[in-house]
Amino acid sequence: MFQVSMQVRDYECDLQGVVNNAVYQNYLEHARHAFLHEQGIDFAALATEGVHLMLIRAELDYKAPLKPNDRFEVTVRMVAEGRTKAVFEQQIVRDDGKLMVDARTIGVNTRNGRPARLPESLTAAFDEAKS
Amino acid sequence: MFQVSMQVRDYECDLQGVVNNAVYQNYLEHARHAFLHEQGIDFAALATEGVHLMLIRAELDYKAPLKPNDRFEVTVRMVAEGRTKAVFEQQIVRDDGKLMVDARTIGVNTRNGRPARLPESLTAAFDEAKS
Amino acid sequence: MFQVSMQVRDYECDLQGVVNNAVYQNYLEHARHAFLHEQGIDFAALATEGVHLMLIRAELDYKAPLKPNDRFEVTVRMVAEGRTKAVFEQQIVRDDGKLMVDARTIGVNTRNGRPARLPESLTAAFDEAKS
Amino acid sequence: MFQVSMQVRDYECDLQGVVNNAVYQNYLEHARHAFLHEQGIDFAALATEGVHLMLIRAELDYKAPLKPNDRFEVTVRMVAEGRTKAVFEQQIVRDDGKLMVDARTIGVNTRNGRPARLPESLTAAFDEAKS
Repeated sequence: MFQVSMQVRDYECDLQGVVNNAVYQNYLEHARHAFLHEQGIDFAALATEGVHLMLIRAELDYKAPLKPNDRFEVTVRMVAEGRTKAVFEQQIVRDDGKLMVDARTIGVNTRNGRPARLPESLTAAFDEAKS
Repeated sequence: MFQVSMQVRDYECDLQGVVNNAVYQNYLEHARHAFLHEQGIDFAALATEGVHLMLIRAELDYKAPLKPNDRFEVTVRMVAEGRTKAVFEQQIVRDDGKLMVDARTIGVNTRNGRPARLPESLTAAFDEAKS
Repeated sequence: MFQVSMQVRDYECDLQGVVNNAVYQNYLEHARHAFLHEQGIDFAALATEGVHLMLIRAELDYKAPLKPNDRFEVTVRMVAEGRTKAVFEQQIVRDDGKLMVDARTIGVNTRNGRPARLPESLTAAFDEAKS
Repeated sequence: MFQVSMQVRDYECDLQGVVNNAVYQNYLEHARHAFLHEQGIDFAALATEGVHLMLIRAELDYKAPLKPNDRFEVTVRMVAEGRTKAVFEQQIVRDDGKLMVDARTIGVNTRNGRPARLPESLTAAFDEAKS
């Protein structure tokens, strides 16, 4: 399973002394992009061509809050849904094995604002994952 | 229905030229806190007493992306769920009436890390909304 | 003098209970862009044409920290420096008149990465300010 | 010299396709806190005791912009200034050796809002650096 190692930075924490809820979406996005990057998909480059993988839904279950300096892994598991959608099941796990956030995001690939086939490199990854 | 008027700031937009997905959670949180503030609940003050309304789940359906300078409203509708949970149904609506994000977040009130009764002012708001 | 009214949002505050130091740069940028927008300069649009007003220096004197819910004004005063540079003198002033941040930023206009004349609408604003 | 290795994350980039100017202050803060942490100073813990190292000035010279996925080092060099102030000279250097940002920040140690002696562990670090 693909995963990225990260560590909480103080500026990501809010008044409550823990990582702000919105920041977990940053972590999840970063791990998704790193995953896609590993599949040969460069988001910044695709954006200049009018191709975007747009998020259409995000679900996050917050199990326990990350604190300053906590180390954690963000995992990415991809599941195909038709030709244009990608479902990402992701977890944020503290280095002692505790599950902090359980998330599911759904993206649709678009070209110039319209749904478009997922890039081949990504479909290949899907097929590989399936078999 | 409670609502807060906001406008997209350029720094909230990412490489794709639209508001970054995580930023909508900032907008939603800000509207929730403004709503709670109006009920006489001061989050910053409560945090110093060990009282936190912790998010346990967030669901966001991204309908269309906000762009630089777009003006929008963030609405908040609260529904009680037992004595310690608050469910917030929120929408982000562009000034031309277009629904951009449809969201639902669930919070649990805690004192020193343990579930605790919601503040009375909030319960009163619930009861008022019910009747 | 150009100014934008804003209010602190809880998510902009950090562990120390006050607005995080980096966030003031967001406020300053937002006010600069609003100022430029008023001069008919649309940053998002210019970016797609390869034109960017790139910051080359920022100086911020932090006088006192903004706290949750504080209301404040961000002022913008522009001074020309040659044909390609714009100097912005900016202040962040709390609604009781207290100066919170005194800042100075210098930008260079670029086209495809090279210094380029400032947009005419901006030069006109300079000339107007001078006379 | 103390340094922290980091990599640009896509969400840190703005409409202009490069790291947003405010984000460099996040990088600089993170490196300062990591440096102080190494000296045995825990910011999150100190904040709960009313002790804060408050920034009073930041100067950033932006030499060239970081782009998506760029790897870089953030260096920290500390210089004492009296008993309550700490001056941090910091650089952000891309992995090919190119200087991207040259910065200088000044902090004052405070206890309950008033200037206070720097923590001993930090003074010791100063003295060590001097000799």
